[in-house]
Amino acid sequence: MQHSTYSLLPARRVGQAIVWLALFLLGPAALAETVQSPNGQLTLDFSLQNGGVPTYRLTYKGRDVIKPSTLGLELKDAPSLTEGFAVATTKTVAIDQSWQPVWGEVKTIRNHYNELAVTLTQATTQRTMLVRFRVFDDGLGFRYEFPRQPNLGYFVVKEEKTQFALAGDHKAFWLPGDYDTQEYSTVTSKLSKVRGLMKAATTPNASQTPFSPTGVQTPLMLKSKDGLYINIHEAALVDYSCMSLELDDKDMILTSHLTPDAQGNKGYLQTPCLSPWRTVIVSDKAGDILESKLVLNLNEPTKFKDTSWIKPTKYVGVWWEMITGKSTWAYTNMDNIKLDSIDYSKVKPNGTHAANTAHVKEYIDFAAQHHLDAVLVEGWNTGWEDWFGKSKDYVFDFVTPYPDFDVEELHRYAKSKGVKIIMHHETSGSVRNYERHLESAFQFMNKHGYDAVKTGYVGDILPRGEYHYGQWTVNHYNYVLEKAAEHHIMVNGHEAVRPTGLSRTYPNLIGNEAARGTEYEAFGGNNADHTTILPFTRLIGGPMDYTPGIFQTKVSAYNPQNNSFVHSTLARQLALYVTMYSPLQMAADLPETYNKFLDAFQFIEDVAVDWDDSKVLEAEPGDYVTIARKAKGTSNWFVGSSCDENGRTSTIDFRFLDPGKKYTATIYADAKSAHYEKNPQAYQIRKMTVTSKTKLKQYCAPGGGYAISVMAGK
Amino acid sequence: MQHSTYSLLPARRVGQAIVWLALFLLGPAALAETVQSPNGQLTLDFSLQNGGVPTYRLTYKGRDVIKPSTLGLELKDAPSLTEGFAVATTKTVAIDQSWQPVWGEVKTIRNHYNELAVTLTQATTQRTMLVRFRVFDDGLGFRYEFPRQPNLGYFVVKEEKTQFALAGDHKAFWLPGDYDTQEYSTVTSKLSKVRGLMKAATTPNASQTPFSPTGVQTPLMLKSKDGLYINIHEAALVDYSCMSLELDDKDMILTSHLTPDAQGNKGYLQTPCLSPWRTVIVSDKAGDILESKLVLNLNEPTKFKDTSWIKPTKYVGVWWEMITGKSTWAYTNMDNIKLDSIDYSKVKPNGTHAANTAHVKEYIDFAAQHHLDAVLVEGWNTGWEDWFGKSKDYVFDFVTPYPDFDVEELHRYAKSKGVKIIMHHETSGSVRNYERHLESAFQFMNKHGYDAVKTGYVGDILPRGEYHYGQWTVNHYNYVLEKAAEHHIMVNGHEAVRPTGLSRTYPNLIGNEAARGTEYEAFGGNNADHTTILPFTRLIGGPMDYTPGIFQTKVSAYNPQNNSFVHSTLARQLALYVTMYSPLQMAADLPETYNKFLDAFQFIEDVAVDWDDSKVLEAEPGDYVTIARKAKGTSNWFVGSSCDENGRTSTIDFRFLDPGKKYTATIYADAKSAHYEKNPQAYQIRKMTVTSKTKLKQYCAPGGGYAISVMAGK
Repeated sequence: MQHSTYSLLPARRVGQAIVWLALFLLGPAALAETVQSPNGQLTLDFSLQNGGVPTYRLTYKGRDVIKPSTLGLELKDAPSLTEGFAVATTKTVAIDQSWQPVWGEVKTIRNHYNELAVTLTQATTQRTMLVRFRVFDDGLGFRYEFPRQPNLGYFVVKEEKTQFALAGDHKAFWLPGDYDTQEYSTVTSKLSKVRGLMKAATTPNASQTPFSPTGVQTPLMLKSKDGLYINIHEAALVDYSCMSLELDDKDMILTSHLTPDAQGNKGYLQTPCLSPWRTVIVSDKAGDILESKLVLNLNEPTKFKDTSWIKPTKYVGVWWEMITGKSTWAYTNMDNIKLDSIDYSKVKPNGTHAANTAHVKEYIDFAAQHHLDAVLVEGWNTGWEDWFGKSKDYVFDFVTPYPDFDVEELHRYAKSKGVKIIMHHETSGSVRNYERHLESAFQFMNKHGYDAVKTGYVGDILPRGEYHYGQWTVNHYNYVLEKAAEHHIMVNGHEAVRPTGLSRTYPNLIGNEAARGTEYEAFGGNNADHTTILPFTRLIGGPMDYTPGIFQTKVSAYNPQNNSFVHSTLARQLALYVTMYSPLQMAADLPETYNKFLDAFQFIEDVAVDWDDSKVLEAEPGDYVTIARKAKGTSNWFVGSSCDENGRTSTIDFRFLDPGKKYTATIYADAKSAHYEKNPQAYQIRKMTVTSKTKLKQYCAPGGGYAISVMAGK
Repeated sequence: MQHSTYSLLPARRVGQAIVWLALFLLGPAALAETVQSPNGQLTLDFSLQNGGVPTYRLTYKGRDVIKPSTLGLELKDAPSLTEGFAVATTKTVAIDQSWQPVWGEVKTIRNHYNELAVTLTQATTQRTMLVRFRVFDDGLGFRYEFPRQPNLGYFVVKEEKTQFALAGDHKAFWLPGDYDTQEYSTVTSKLSKVRGLMKAATTPNASQTPFSPTGVQTPLMLKSKDGLYINIHEAALVDYSCMSLELDDKDMILTSHLTPDAQGNKGYLQTPCLSPWRTVIVSDKAGDILESKLVLNLNEPTKFKDTSWIKPTKYVGVWWEMITGKSTWAYTNMDNIKLDSIDYSKVKPNGTHAANTAHVKEYIDFAAQHHLDAVLVEGWNTGWEDWFGKSKDYVFDFVTPYPDFDVEELHRYAKSKGVKIIMHHETSGSVRNYERHLESAFQFMNKHGYDAVKTGYVGDILPRGEYHYGQWTVNHYNYVLEKAAEHHIMVNGHEAVRPTGLSRTYPNLIGNEAARGTEYEAFGGNNADHTTILPFTRLIGGPMDYTPGIFQTKVSAYNPQNNSFVHSTLARQLALYVTMYSPLQMAADLPETYNKFLDAFQFIEDVAVDWDDSKVLEAEPGDYVTIARKAKGTSNWFVGSSCDENGRTSTIDFRFLDPGKKYTATIYADAKSAHYEKNPQAYQIRKMTVTSKTKLKQYCAPGGGYAISVMAGK
């Protein structure tokens, strides 16, 4: 259901424009236009600068968020759409709607903004471009729109030139800009330090194409000296290249930098068409950034008529044992194999293949016993001997199991236990091959009862020369979502482009990786503050399949050759089920380990994966995040807190609970002696009764955290 | 059925090697090896030159065809496979088999050769490469083979370095080397003149990427001063880039030049793997080049178990009226349309759309009346308003007819008349889009009774940066053939890579364009000698859908704006059904024109499209070609002759007829006054009785020819 109110804003053009121009001191503008957020705290000014250059500025409570910044695009073999404009028309409208997501952090999302649409005409070329601004209480979204018109049909984008001129040398939580990977550790530094830190920040990856010593990715989280929290990202990335930001570190101006294609072009557009929204979320309270629904609101409602097949899912997986090196995806130790000529029934098994029928049944048993929904199985299909880094075209067929993986028997068995098996489609970046097999792969899933797939794009993209984040590949990811939806299949895309709120439009996009996940804890480790940053960066675009729940934090316990350790206490691993919002949550460790810590595992068993409400209790990027969420269709709440390497004590105010009601809180917390490196498994569990008046001090160890289940009495 | 004899050739290594090395004068070789053709007229010498450089030489009746020429490949980021080799083993074998093509110029093809396989090892890298030579009576084929081995798994080809060192400055029939098109007029010149003529030869095309001032395409036809006819091409182009030839015009050495991908690489290979065969057909008789089955013999037998659904086809088409500009493919005159948003039921038809139900029925009626098998209909599906040159991704969906094209009614009607409708899939080069729709498009064809498709790849390839002739796109064409075969669909690929005999392996590849076809007669014209050259060049790789049969040679009769004319007499248009071998032959002109020349059209109605035997009666590239063919399963023969702009008189010796039998010959010939430009429609038809002893002098006008049906008496 949607509730809408539409009203035309009063035209306040002349007065405000003069004020702004006085501040501007950039010469006379043809026209200026102002629009404010519904609560009046944000002000968006649009004007044409000298030479007809479209320019916008964003203030929050009178302070500059985005200083006057130019707009436009450079085209290939055509005049730029950056200057020479006049304003043809402007239109303002106020919107106040609400809508209910298929799954989410809250039951109902309010979409409340004032809009300014400026139609610009370029006299010399007789071309028209529209810039649409939407000013919410929590930030700004704007996009370019190119109407159907005689002089602009097809065009090729050389570069989008959207500026975000910052008001100072902000503290930034940044990743190296890259056309192929987001799996970097976040660097926390002043913007002026980006250049000096870039080389060290650009750690090796299976596929990577950094592009500049000052290029950074979005969502980019910033904090100004005077305490403004600013997040820059994009929404609704459809048929366009993913945007990074190029930093001018003298003037602190960020400029859009699109991902190129094999020929160096940045986008192929046909009118009528739209750019994605460019988003600036802003507040003087960090928690507001986390609670913002701006990115979702800027996406289109879903066109799916039936969404009953989309189900938030908690799962275990035949996965961490391969990540740690205890087991293998591959069935043999051969190399250089060809799918169309190898006969697996005649080769020697390596004895370390995890995805075998008996072993998968153990996972199914564990899932059933602990009321988890599903078991992910990686390494079930042929080709894993020889899948990576070879620019191999026909790398997997997605339908042929290894001889020791009995698809039918496992689905019969899983079904008898009320458990689903999650499909895995690693593509090795060979996109054409995946598209060729997509229909048969999805038919195979439908036939055998799979309803979700984890896709993977490890390694360089084929067609060669394309990047993970270019328009070509972006188009592919969305194509997979559409085809999957036709088959009622949910998708969890790994190594795909970072999400931009598209799960509103495609609610079968239940998960994405697109950042440095838990797997890196087995590849040398994540920073101890990693999960205090990700909610402010990666998660702004959508949920992440972070795969928490590692209780055995020493990887050497599984593989003596691997000295990595998880940079988190065990208690904090529980907290992540709440702080790292996702409708798809993995219990990533091995059943053999969980069986040693069943008291702690109880939280994972209890925690919800879909919510009616969410409250950020306290948050500071890079330091701590504490969130409370109300489980869907219940009165139960779950609280999670993650802190950085320094440890701290929260004061939890339970006022979010229903007044007068008693709840039983079970607190899974770090012991006093706990430490993410030295003593990660020291946790304590205690129970207490809480009400909406309870205030609780709760300790977090260095690299630690806590999780609380708050169950309503009857 | 196949008949085979295998025998090991006697080893003649030592003696012949010494002789050859004496001729060589290039320093001592590690080893030399010789193998001859079954008739002893061709001799292939292999040796290692100084530094372990693999080298071959080919002589014909003691004359150099290919002077000592080096072999090998340069790899990317790996040592070259061009030198440092030692011979590990050599193996010779003699083969004499015969096989029957699904369709063809002859009923049975003899595959008779002596083979030399040289296994080379490169000591410094511990890598192995095999060169396999097959010496037939009509020429040489050789290829590189890369066995599975520890030190050569995946590799990237930087360039193949296969030399063809010629013995002189031969006369060449050449096209500018190009990664995207073969639709150039053939230039006839000495090799030394290629450089000077290249610029003028490189005429505009919808997609073209010439690469060098001395690059030329294959099949390259050459004639030496002393009367040797030499043809260089390739066979079995599978999962490899198409080869052009780079001419060193000082030393007259041709070197292989592969088509690159978007990143400039020339091939991605995984052992075990093979290069295509490099072919050199040679004779001192031009007709032997035309009769050679070497390219087919070097292709693999088909794996199709059932080929009963593959049927040689004669057809008319809703096509020439669009080519001439009389009608349009498009249903409206809009531009800049999007398939997913246009509602054709609401737009204004342009009134010139040819593929409408009523008009297509006229073609069906004509086909039925004249016993043609099928009607091709182009422009039946939505999207033609806006299909070319826009780098448009989603350009066609291949299943949605224009509102005035009633698919079901037309198939009902056609079926009632015993006629098939041929599908048309223009892709606009948007290969990913085609692959995405391939399955549904073929299902649509199966559902509606289509059994053949003409595919088109006009314009630059998407994925952008790939070329029509690169490995990526070559892989696509073969993928389409395989998928089509699964649906029992025949394919006629236009703008695809030039054929290399693959119709043996994929007999559903019943046609290809891949050269300058009749359509260019409406785009300024083909040279008058064009059809005396194509059999020696383009047709060496496989049949061409040349679309002959244009009786109204003045294009202005259909479109007053178009001053082009067909550079051929009407009689010669008939001859092409015999001289331009194809199992797929179009009667390309309009029924309204054929109805004015029904006496001449009788030849098209009578002529076969599948043959039990073929005889080249006389031939000289660029001057004339006269061929007699025996219709499949009958005693009837058809003779065709095409000559150049000078005209000539043939002497036809009918000794190919069964002795003692009487035949009725109907001769469709140029009148004395005929001339391809001044008087093209002046023809005469006469009948006479012929026997195997008949000799007939027959005049060909300038740009003319003749066609004869020779029907056996009862």
